[in-house]
Amino acid sequence: MSGSEIPMALVLERAGELSLRPFEIDEELGPNDVRIVIHTVGICGSDVHYYQHGRIGPFVVEEPMVLGHEASGVVAEVGSRVQHLGVGDRVCMEPGIPDPESRAARLGMYNLDPKVRFWATPPVHGCLRPSVVHPAAYTFKVPDNVSFAEGAMVEPLAVGLHAANKAGLRAGDLAVVIGAGPIGIVTALSAIAAGASRVIISDVQQEKLDLAETLGPITAVNVAEVSLAEEVNRLSDAWGADAVFEASGNERAAASVFDYLRPGGCVVYIGMPAGPIPYDVIGASVKEARVEHVFRYANVYPQALSLLGSGRIDVKPLITDRFTFAESVEAFDYAVGMPASSVKVQISLQ
Amino acid sequence: MSGSEIPMALVLERAGELSLRPFEIDEELGPNDVRIVIHTVGICGSDVHYYQHGRIGPFVVEEPMVLGHEASGVVAEVGSRVQHLGVGDRVCMEPGIPDPESRAARLGMYNLDPKVRFWATPPVHGCLRPSVVHPAAYTFKVPDNVSFAEGAMVEPLAVGLHAANKAGLRAGDLAVVIGAGPIGIVTALSAIAAGASRVIISDVQQEKLDLAETLGPITAVNVAEVSLAEEVNRLSDAWGADAVFEASGNERAAASVFDYLRPGGCVVYIGMPAGPIPYDVIGASVKEARVEHVFRYANVYPQALSLLGSGRIDVKPLITDRFTFAESVEAFDYAVGMPASSVKVQISLQ
Amino acid sequence: MSGSEIPMALVLERAGELSLRPFEIDEELGPNDVRIVIHTVGICGSDVHYYQHGRIGPFVVEEPMVLGHEASGVVAEVGSRVQHLGVGDRVCMEPGIPDPESRAARLGMYNLDPKVRFWATPPVHGCLRPSVVHPAAYTFKVPDNVSFAEGAMVEPLAVGLHAANKAGLRAGDLAVVIGAGPIGIVTALSAIAAGASRVIISDVQQEKLDLAETLGPITAVNVAEVSLAEEVNRLSDAWGADAVFEASGNERAAASVFDYLRPGGCVVYIGMPAGPIPYDVIGASVKEARVEHVFRYANVYPQALSLLGSGRIDVKPLITDRFTFAESVEAFDYAVGMPASSVKVQISLQ
Amino acid sequence: MSGSEIPMALVLERAGELSLRPFEIDEELGPNDVRIVIHTVGICGSDVHYYQHGRIGPFVVEEPMVLGHEASGVVAEVGSRVQHLGVGDRVCMEPGIPDPESRAARLGMYNLDPKVRFWATPPVHGCLRPSVVHPAAYTFKVPDNVSFAEGAMVEPLAVGLHAANKAGLRAGDLAVVIGAGPIGIVTALSAIAAGASRVIISDVQQEKLDLAETLGPITAVNVAEVSLAEEVNRLSDAWGADAVFEASGNERAAASVFDYLRPGGCVVYIGMPAGPIPYDVIGASVKEARVEHVFRYANVYPQALSLLGSGRIDVKPLITDRFTFAESVEAFDYAVGMPASSVKVQISLQ
Repeated sequence: MSGSEIPMALVLERAGELSLRPFEIDEELGPNDVRIVIHTVGICGSDVHYYQHGRIGPFVVEEPMVLGHEASGVVAEVGSRVQHLGVGDRVCMEPGIPDPESRAARLGMYNLDPKVRFWATPPVHGCLRPSVVHPAAYTFKVPDNVSFAEGAMVEPLAVGLHAANKAGLRAGDLAVVIGAGPIGIVTALSAIAAGASRVIISDVQQEKLDLAETLGPITAVNVAEVSLAEEVNRLSDAWGADAVFEASGNERAAASVFDYLRPGGCVVYIGMPAGPIPYDVIGASVKEARVEHVFRYANVYPQALSLLGSGRIDVKPLITDRFTFAESVEAFDYAVGMPASSVKVQISLQ
Repeated sequence: MSGSEIPMALVLERAGELSLRPFEIDEELGPNDVRIVIHTVGICGSDVHYYQHGRIGPFVVEEPMVLGHEASGVVAEVGSRVQHLGVGDRVCMEPGIPDPESRAARLGMYNLDPKVRFWATPPVHGCLRPSVVHPAAYTFKVPDNVSFAEGAMVEPLAVGLHAANKAGLRAGDLAVVIGAGPIGIVTALSAIAAGASRVIISDVQQEKLDLAETLGPITAVNVAEVSLAEEVNRLSDAWGADAVFEASGNERAAASVFDYLRPGGCVVYIGMPAGPIPYDVIGASVKEARVEHVFRYANVYPQALSLLGSGRIDVKPLITDRFTFAESVEAFDYAVGMPASSVKVQISLQ
Repeated sequence: MSGSEIPMALVLERAGELSLRPFEIDEELGPNDVRIVIHTVGICGSDVHYYQHGRIGPFVVEEPMVLGHEASGVVAEVGSRVQHLGVGDRVCMEPGIPDPESRAARLGMYNLDPKVRFWATPPVHGCLRPSVVHPAAYTFKVPDNVSFAEGAMVEPLAVGLHAANKAGLRAGDLAVVIGAGPIGIVTALSAIAAGASRVIISDVQQEKLDLAETLGPITAVNVAEVSLAEEVNRLSDAWGADAVFEASGNERAAASVFDYLRPGGCVVYIGMPAGPIPYDVIGASVKEARVEHVFRYANVYPQALSLLGSGRIDVKPLITDRFTFAESVEAFDYAVGMPASSVKVQISLQ
Repeated sequence: MSGSEIPMALVLERAGELSLRPFEIDEELGPNDVRIVIHTVGICGSDVHYYQHGRIGPFVVEEPMVLGHEASGVVAEVGSRVQHLGVGDRVCMEPGIPDPESRAARLGMYNLDPKVRFWATPPVHGCLRPSVVHPAAYTFKVPDNVSFAEGAMVEPLAVGLHAANKAGLRAGDLAVVIGAGPIGIVTALSAIAAGASRVIISDVQQEKLDLAETLGPITAVNVAEVSLAEEVNRLSDAWGADAVFEASGNERAAASVFDYLRPGGCVVYIGMPAGPIPYDVIGASVKEARVEHVFRYANVYPQALSLLGSGRIDVKPLITDRFTFAESVEAFDYAVGMPASSVKVQISLQ
């Protein structure tokens, strides 16, 4: 970033209005920080939601805000106390920066610190810009055999892995994933990486299900046509699934989770329904279900990078669409009306 | 039980009709069984519900059925292979008999075996009768310093302890119990025994709350007058409770549980609402709540007896009303319209 | 088994003396039992140990005993109450039969019931004979695509899986397995199935290590030549392994386990050293290691069969040597002096 | 601390030589720090060990070092970003300051960060001086009803609580504590607070055992006279203890822990033996023992303060000896030859 030139950024001016324009963000490099030249940024459903609605729940875009939080890049400058990173390192970044001395962070749940500053969550700017300053502690080296595009997939993959971690899967388990969107699919891949010998994934969009079935030992169930409960019973000898991941955010789906579960099994809610869902306490009780909830992720990036580096998880088939930085606005408009066969849209800045 | 006389039993003839009358039950003493002369039987809300409605969910009273499942007594006869019990032992019994080789039982969750035969759950007869034959494995010696009346309290206490076990409380925790009925109160006592340095219990019946406050480090909150969330914040420095036990079965209460919880805390649903409840997935997610469900209990009787024997839990103040066997029908009619200051009604057969 | 003929069995007459001879065992088919025609039996190190020494610890062969406990076969007769099995089903069997109503069994740890009767552990006869009667609850259907030879591998595989279950591995973990004998290898396969993206296996026999490296993402370390600690540091960026499995039973190896572990990691002891080992409490403390121990396995057969059926674990490369029933004594003599390149010797009865 | 005067401190000049003398320590108050006027400091066995030997393992006193790490005091000055503390607050402090962004700290195990700076562990100065600057995040308000003397007991109590947390005790459990020194006793109190209905504590010093028995439902066993295993069997009906805490550091005691354990129970090593101990892998295996290790504590101070404030744990009987700051050297000489009836020696600076 040379001289007096103001760098470009993809700016959400207000709901419905995006511009790629010069945008100044003052960022000083602290002793524990690194400066990263951004290479690739994925578009997440939340970015699209801010674009369309200007808000998510209590988070309202009140001033122009740079979008983007799924990023990879190259270290360009290193703070004085940083030890594990050097200039030229290929990296990806956790977009949320907690107060490391908050009570939640000290307990290892830094994602639950209410003061987390998260890229592209108002009023914090995102990373669709040439470079960012970031704490080295939340910046991770990407293995040589993992591309920048895959590196930018670590963020959504971390959501699925965090959910799989909560479930405590064992080798040979049967898992159900409700919803075959990007998060449902990375959750299915995570469950398989965590030992599931089979994942049953459900959706109503056949294109998504067809893609999912190509990705591993995944049985796709179109619930517009087939009973998910019957399929689970068939594949589990009527015992039920060891874990059920709710990744649709759909109210009716969210209410049925215990129907698919074995006694003593675990349900993980990942999707965020708009309001309260109907919840079957009796159905959960007779199976003594354990129910877990996730909020983003914590301590998952090293795990994700190990899985990508070793080839145990392959996210390349999920990167269905790529745009240049100059095409950023077009990329978002594409993402708004994305065809069912698309999974992840990425923007390449290099 | 001498000669050819048919013993008396408290028989639910049909919804609304009870009789104390001679009632023959054929029971052979197997090699792993004991015969127990019943001493005391407590009346549970489920007994009252069968009396009033003739059914609970799918369980319908279609033929005359003996009521009662909270019992203590004395061993009168011992099967040929029984080793840990002898004639004259004072005992209490788990009312549910599983198939010990079912898949759930082999996993240690014998309470989740769908084939469990449970006293006074149709078509299985209960224990309001002079003697019963029971598997020795589900019959437990009562310490000398624990009375028969207390022994008959082990069954409801086990429900509270099982819930506290699921919560995984640590010493010094803050717990919330919603509902100050018999199960709410034994849950509060269980949470305290498990380490809680304070329990906040909520209800709308002031008599129940007044009683609860006499039983330990318990703060009673009448939610008709005071905000439970504010009280939790006040006592937790706005961090939230480590565990929230829902013991009211009330739909609105069940929906608010996450408001009281700390990040990473645990909710246990004990109460059984009539239908689905509204469930706040987002509220649960931002705290990554763990939610547990209980169905009766498993492996809890030795724990309950250790706590009663050591005096760590005192259930005597909960035994508010006692009737003789001859007054059984009267006891049930009393239980139907029980005053708010009553907790447990028991029938003494000796 | 027709008429009055006494069936043959492989009988350990006393230490060092085996005979394949007619041997009568009275077995009645109870209502919950099945009769199984044995197809394949693997030879375990413990069988060989009894053959050579006539005892293992407190278990002494005092009368002629049939050997063998790793078996698969076909159901030939079914007890009156058995529901999930039928004549002709291809099955494998857990060799240990607990008292299902013992305290340990009720807790789900039926393997820890001191009264377990385990095949080929004196005075209980093993399964190297034409047919056995066995409880249906401990008899499991083998998937169509899994051979009898693989079915007879479920028993040793269950040991490795049980260890991996105890470790609580997550996807992407790094595991160390000390010892590349049959149990070390099935543990490595189990750790990979449970999510490990890499296993470092150590031994001093290069043939075993060479075989191990062909079986998955396994790095073999010959500790006669290379430092295991250095290799772990290199592959973990000096953080340490998430789990260390001690499968050598070697005293010196068993003492070094904490050197390879990350802070908060887990060590599982599988191998049984002859006597007490030196144990580094300080090394374990500074990492707050969790240490787990295993005794055979419980509730693992369905998991093993799911993994074999789905192809997530392939044990076929481990079955290095096969003999006929008529060659049983020869098979044992081969197993005694087994070359380092051999893993599992099996005897086929059909 | 007025003007140019250099404050006094208790300085360990070298092994065997203590002086109370002016000693300057440069401490700047950062934005997240507080300055605390010290009130009371307890003497720990490690302080005494440095006094006598000048080192503990790899930690060697090479320059004069201020001793003391068990402290309470009053906040005198507050950094600009500190929110939860104010001048005049009565507080106690965690003596270890980690790098909150280390990998271990992010996982919630900040005590395992190898870069922790811990009071009175060379080269870090301790707190036997008029005031210290400390991070507010590791400074905790003491409840009004808890004295400064009790506040200075939070540090050793935290060790016992951390061990009890690792054990995962349930209400009604039976625990064994080996060793009735200060750490053994706070562990026994912690186990009781965590639900144990009885603790069996063992030692060979009868005075310590006599004291221990006055502190709760504690059975003292003088292992010079009585068999601990027999006592455990007697009190557990031959089932064994749910948890065994090794707090003696004695090699022989450390080797016997599995003899007292129930199947599936947990052993926690707290004491630090001088070298490797003999470890009974077979004894641990047949019970599938879980073994935990502790290194100081993490996230335990709020828990300890809740237990002291609620009266669930009373440490006042453990504070057996008090000295003034002027008597500091005398206090240490007393601690070196402390009678068996003493537990904790404290120095009051106010």
